[in-house]
Amino acid sequence: MSETDAAAAPSRSDAPDLEQDAPIETNLDEDDHLKPEFVAAVLEAVDEGDFETARKLVEPLHPADIADLLELTPGERRAEMTEALGDLVSAEVLSELNDYVRDDVVEALPNEQIAELASELDTDDAVAIIEDLDKEDQQEVLEAMEPEDRAAIESALSYPEETAGRLMQRDLVAVPELWSVGKTIDYLRDTVDLTSDFWEIFVVDAAYKPIGTCQLSWVLRCPRDIAMSDVMKRDQTLIPVDMDQEEVALRFQKYALISAAVVDPGGRLVGMITVDDIVHIIQEEAGEDILRLSGAGDGDINQPILLTVRTRLMWLLINLPTAMLAATVVNLFDAEIAKYAVLAVLMGIVSGMGGNAGTQTLAVVVRAIATNQLTSSNTRRVVFRELRIAATNGVSLGILIGIGAFFIWHNPALAMVFGAAILINNIVAGLAGVFVPVTLDRFNIDPAISSAVFVTMCTDCMGFMSFLGLATLAGLGS
Amino acid sequence: MSETDAAAAPSRSDAPDLEQDAPIETNLDEDDHLKPEFVAAVLEAVDEGDFETARKLVEPLHPADIADLLELTPGERRAEMTEALGDLVSAEVLSELNDYVRDDVVEALPNEQIAELASELDTDDAVAIIEDLDKEDQQEVLEAMEPEDRAAIESALSYPEETAGRLMQRDLVAVPELWSVGKTIDYLRDTVDLTSDFWEIFVVDAAYKPIGTCQLSWVLRCPRDIAMSDVMKRDQTLIPVDMDQEEVALRFQKYALISAAVVDPGGRLVGMITVDDIVHIIQEEAGEDILRLSGAGDGDINQPILLTVRTRLMWLLINLPTAMLAATVVNLFDAEIAKYAVLAVLMGIVSGMGGNAGTQTLAVVVRAIATNQLTSSNTRRVVFRELRIAATNGVSLGILIGIGAFFIWHNPALAMVFGAAILINNIVAGLAGVFVPVTLDRFNIDPAISSAVFVTMCTDCMGFMSFLGLATLAGLGS
Repeated sequence: MSETDAAAAPSRSDAPDLEQDAPIETNLDEDDHLKPEFVAAVLEAVDEGDFETARKLVEPLHPADIADLLELTPGERRAEMTEALGDLVSAEVLSELNDYVRDDVVEALPNEQIAELASELDTDDAVAIIEDLDKEDQQEVLEAMEPEDRAAIESALSYPEETAGRLMQRDLVAVPELWSVGKTIDYLRDTVDLTSDFWEIFVVDAAYKPIGTCQLSWVLRCPRDIAMSDVMKRDQTLIPVDMDQEEVALRFQKYALISAAVVDPGGRLVGMITVDDIVHIIQEEAGEDILRLSGAGDGDINQPILLTVRTRLMWLLINLPTAMLAATVVNLFDAEIAKYAVLAVLMGIVSGMGGNAGTQTLAVVVRAIATNQLTSSNTRRVVFRELRIAATNGVSLGILIGIGAFFIWHNPALAMVFGAAILINNIVAGLAGVFVPVTLDRFNIDPAISSAVFVTMCTDCMGFMSFLGLATLAGLGS
Repeated sequence: MSETDAAAAPSRSDAPDLEQDAPIETNLDEDDHLKPEFVAAVLEAVDEGDFETARKLVEPLHPADIADLLELTPGERRAEMTEALGDLVSAEVLSELNDYVRDDVVEALPNEQIAELASELDTDDAVAIIEDLDKEDQQEVLEAMEPEDRAAIESALSYPEETAGRLMQRDLVAVPELWSVGKTIDYLRDTVDLTSDFWEIFVVDAAYKPIGTCQLSWVLRCPRDIAMSDVMKRDQTLIPVDMDQEEVALRFQKYALISAAVVDPGGRLVGMITVDDIVHIIQEEAGEDILRLSGAGDGDINQPILLTVRTRLMWLLINLPTAMLAATVVNLFDAEIAKYAVLAVLMGIVSGMGGNAGTQTLAVVVRAIATNQLTSSNTRRVVFRELRIAATNGVSLGILIGIGAFFIWHNPALAMVFGAAILINNIVAGLAGVFVPVTLDRFNIDPAISSAVFVTMCTDCMGFMSFLGLATLAGLGS
């Protein structure tokens, strides 16, 4: 670490022209959200057909905020809003939009405008828009584009969805290893057709295989006569073009990458992925687990409602047999319950507390698997750890609840049965919370999607079984 | 989009020297995890006191993989592993380590080595290590550091934890607006003491306030005689030094930033945050919700076990009264249950299915709040949406379950009560799933932490109440 590296005081002292930023600030509340009054004002202007006022209001906004505005517009009015905003719906706005909202917006745009916008976007963003169009529109948009842009997009579309090939952009800077820093800088300055947005330069060999990566800051800090191969870092992370995007995101995180070279099966450089394309994947993937674990599918509030209903209903239907299985366990003891209804009152506490404990373990294990922290090297250690936690919590809760029950019902047998069932179900919860997701993961089934059903089934059935079973053995229902 | 921008074929054709990468590959499995055999081999060497073999095995690894190795080492053997690896535990390794594991490792290092490592790290990473030391060690480490490094860290420590001030690094490049591109490049090349890792140059006014940001690629692509103020982007996102890190992460995502200037309350540039420091926060914050929602606290498998037990036990204890409340509701109907035990068998299905539906809605709403998608502008729309989903699912499930029950028990009253209770509880679940987190958020309580208790309470109590209540009204238990 060196001290703050700053240049001398600048030679001009007049205030900077910050006025253009001012209107942006005033439309945002302290959380950086658009103010509801502002959104309402724009919607009203659009409703009244006063597109000019609407445009005047929206014009000062940052593209990311225009995207937010479109997301906050109710679905059935999005087409009109899109029409009103016209060319304010820029390429940048599109790339910031939520997937479902973007579908609405793109649908409201004429195909020529889509083609124009797509040409301005990075390949990955353009592909994201075009891949969702229906076949006919897709064809029309592609035909309206320049041949090179079209070729780039068609090539990206040839890779499976959610792989590096779809994410990457083709605009990148690659230079031969023998070039000097000076030659590279001259090339960058003199080549008109180069991209302006890149953070690293890839150094390639004669076969166009990347052999090193060079941060721009290194190029700028080095004398002109040094060879690029002496500046570059050889130890690089190459992304195979067919790698799943979640895996790509994990590599970016693990190796703290800003950009990475994408290579075809022959090892040749075919594209580049930058961290800004990855950030939303990291966020999505990390947030996805919670939604999957609770059976909410994609869990997007902008998802078409019928799709949401179908996803959630399916999950509830999958859970139904497990709820019925638990009911069947209760049914085994209906005679005891009829004689001693307190059992029915308390059995839900046993299954519920077990369910809570199981969910805790499950959430921890699912996150640990997703972040590559739980691997085959430490599974046994984690199982043992969860078992100790479950036993400790089970004993604590069992004693507490047993004592509480004794003071309420003055029945030592009931108190002991209750406490013991709580302990047993906590241990069941701890074991199921680890083994279910780990086993599913071994069989390459996403543990976030399917674990909760099995864990709840275990804690419900074993909760009822242990409590009602022990109660029967203790003669409580006879 | 232009076509792939690559330089001509390089002039040398011999194969690149990739050998140094080879040993890294062979120690990793196809998921980029360290192989269990490899981890076991290193641990065995350390156990036998054969530090030399251990070092030879570990030496070819990437720092991120050395960090993984330390994480996979059981807690009680981490000190010995740290000792064995010696200076292979580099600054980079430390910055990649999980917080809890880093505590173990740093504890095993002598203070002079900590001071040396901290000097090599960016301010933010150095602070992360030093802030966790106890007061005495902290003093000793700081005293062993160079005065400037020490000043930077002491200044960072003066900001509250989890704010931009802790995250930022002081090593940055700022130039006056009147400088030309050429002068800036010369300054970068001729100033020995500058950082080499930066992605953007900040342009500042006489008061050292940032007035624009300039990507390095723009500097490289522009003629030397153009003024920096004509190259820079004026529309920039400034991060106040006391901004919460979660908010910083949201800004980085929203505006797709690579780096951002941090300013003090007077608007002066005091530091810079880069996206690689943000990526793990985005990931943590997105993953945190699932853990909080399930009451698993930090949910880290490396957390000290006692802390985990305490966190989880507290959550289970918080849930106990709600489970008891639900039991109290059941208790109101114990006479009916004693007469007709089928009620006890089925009531769990009603509460359980409602709980599942509530969890779905809750997960979606918590994520939407966390990602700034649910704001006061669209709350009403989301409530209405969830209500429609709940009603649709409730009617579908209610009819299905009612019909099923009729064919099993041949009791039309029971079937209708069962179906109606399922419908009612689905609607309760939908409403609670939205209103509980939204209300908590309004009162600035993290909805992820506290929502689940309330939602489960609603679905349990209302599930029992509607089913047993309707059954009583229908005379089923008499």
